[in-house]
Amino acid sequence: MKEYRDVRAKIGFLELCKRADLACEVTVTAVEKLGVDAAIIFADLLLPLEPMGVGLRYERGDGPIIERPVRSPADIERLRPVAPEVDLDYVFAAVKLARAALRPDLPLIGFAGAPFTLASYLVEGGASRNFEKTKSMMYRQPAAWRRLMAVLCDVTARYLNSQIAAGAAAVQLFDSWVGCLSQADYRDFVLPHTQQLVSAIEPGTPVIHFGTGTAHLLELMRDAGGDVIGLDWRVGLAEAWARLGSQVAVQGNLDPVVLFAEPPEIRRRADLILQEAAGRPGHIFNLGHGVLPETPFDHVKYLVEAVHELGRRLYA
Amino acid sequence: MKEYRDVRAKIGFLELCKRADLACEVTVTAVEKLGVDAAIIFADLLLPLEPMGVGLRYERGDGPIIERPVRSPADIERLRPVAPEVDLDYVFAAVKLARAALRPDLPLIGFAGAPFTLASYLVEGGASRNFEKTKSMMYRQPAAWRRLMAVLCDVTARYLNSQIAAGAAAVQLFDSWVGCLSQADYRDFVLPHTQQLVSAIEPGTPVIHFGTGTAHLLELMRDAGGDVIGLDWRVGLAEAWARLGSQVAVQGNLDPVVLFAEPPEIRRRADLILQEAAGRPGHIFNLGHGVLPETPFDHVKYLVEAVHELGRRLYA
Repeated sequence: MKEYRDVRAKIGFLELCKRADLACEVTVTAVEKLGVDAAIIFADLLLPLEPMGVGLRYERGDGPIIERPVRSPADIERLRPVAPEVDLDYVFAAVKLARAALRPDLPLIGFAGAPFTLASYLVEGGASRNFEKTKSMMYRQPAAWRRLMAVLCDVTARYLNSQIAAGAAAVQLFDSWVGCLSQADYRDFVLPHTQQLVSAIEPGTPVIHFGTGTAHLLELMRDAGGDVIGLDWRVGLAEAWARLGSQVAVQGNLDPVVLFAEPPEIRRRADLILQEAAGRPGHIFNLGHGVLPETPFDHVKYLVEAVHELGRRLYA
Repeated sequence: MKEYRDVRAKIGFLELCKRADLACEVTVTAVEKLGVDAAIIFADLLLPLEPMGVGLRYERGDGPIIERPVRSPADIERLRPVAPEVDLDYVFAAVKLARAALRPDLPLIGFAGAPFTLASYLVEGGASRNFEKTKSMMYRQPAAWRRLMAVLCDVTARYLNSQIAAGAAAVQLFDSWVGCLSQADYRDFVLPHTQQLVSAIEPGTPVIHFGTGTAHLLELMRDAGGDVIGLDWRVGLAEAWARLGSQVAVQGNLDPVVLFAEPPEIRRRADLILQEAAGRPGHIFNLGHGVLPETPFDHVKYLVEAVHELGRRLYA
């Protein structure tokens, strides 16, 4: 979006996250320009890692970098204790401002990185392709891994609860990279921690539990918790939902790359997803992952309009 | 392996692939040092793209680069016609040398990139995370996509058949990145082409059909063809095999990162896989993807010994 690029031309990414007024503006502008049915607060997955003192910075084009990665029990003990209520107060200020600025009937969603995904950045020192260092910690230092996950669970639960207290109507837990794990490793090294985290979230607030490349983990992610399971585009929505059962809602699952196609193809593919979900309560239409950088803005806006129109017809 | 690094210190990667004597040496040394039960010819997935005139080069650390990516019908028509029998004769020379140098009872495996994976390099211009340009060609220029796949199918079938004629006892088709596709896109844009390719491979030669991140595609990949389906580590071997049925064998599926663990943990995890496969014919023990660069050589050797020993006990 041009409006976002204009803001970013004047200010660094981390600085923008910390300016509640600008984070609110970016959040609200996106909703107004796109006409979507819910807002998600502008923030970054890794903000809770910054007060831990690991040297988080964002390099243009390179993604986030952790200057002092966490790879041993000593590294874990050196992490500065984080009080999200204080250290991340700028996020809650942005949630409050956005809540006040948005139409009252429009839900505002808070979010956080899930402990596995946060741990992977801490251990690898940034993004990763094969997650060698993260898995190596699991396999070689399982007690250190569990300690790190416990620290991250505690911080994340408090971070999400503070977003809820500030006005978030639902929260999304992004376990973006958990699809790199085998079923057995997910069960042993992630599930119990995520379960504990989800159970610590303020009761009554819907939790959306999201990952990518998780075709093999859907049932386990459901067991870990969440009222809504986020699906990427890989598995068909109807098939995934049949596997998950009717106790959870689903969110998804248009491939973000479809937004590079021509409008009639975008509409056709949105319709296929709506048809797959038709007649069952509990579907949030969404992309299967984030909007990619080069996506034409008009195509995103067109998708929102097409989903509204097709949805009205289906549910008339 | 030290032996490989010594060779590479003297010669570039592409140059090494083209030196049949050295490619044979690297192939045979790996088998002798590791004690594995089959050899795979030393080569690269992208070699068939070089004679197409797209400017293939390998940058240290950056992976392969295609200087003139293929993104339009005109780009496809500009591809130089490849006669694998002539243009890739150095690969068949290496196969012949390796076949003669190996113990006669030790099978030598040939391989090629599958058309989707080759196309993704051609279209993206190198490795990719989101495959925007590849999928965009499918969605916006489906006729051009089919034309490109047809060209790649033809070259790949002839390339594999020439490896077989030179002495390869089996061939492996690497559709390494196909897991980025939805089930519907795989069915429409890949399956018919792979089917055609597999049916063009010399009858009687076993075909191993491999991909990663394919938990959602296993049945479709089986339908596309192959006597053996390669599994990464994500889905449990027993579960995957149950889904695939008894008409195909399976290969896999130890996470390559497990080789960074301590030997007892490596052994325990190899044993779990062998137990999952026990009592059914048609399992090739292997990693779920390639050996990662920093893997300790001794751990690979230890794994081979552990699998031999555990296998002897199970099948005694």
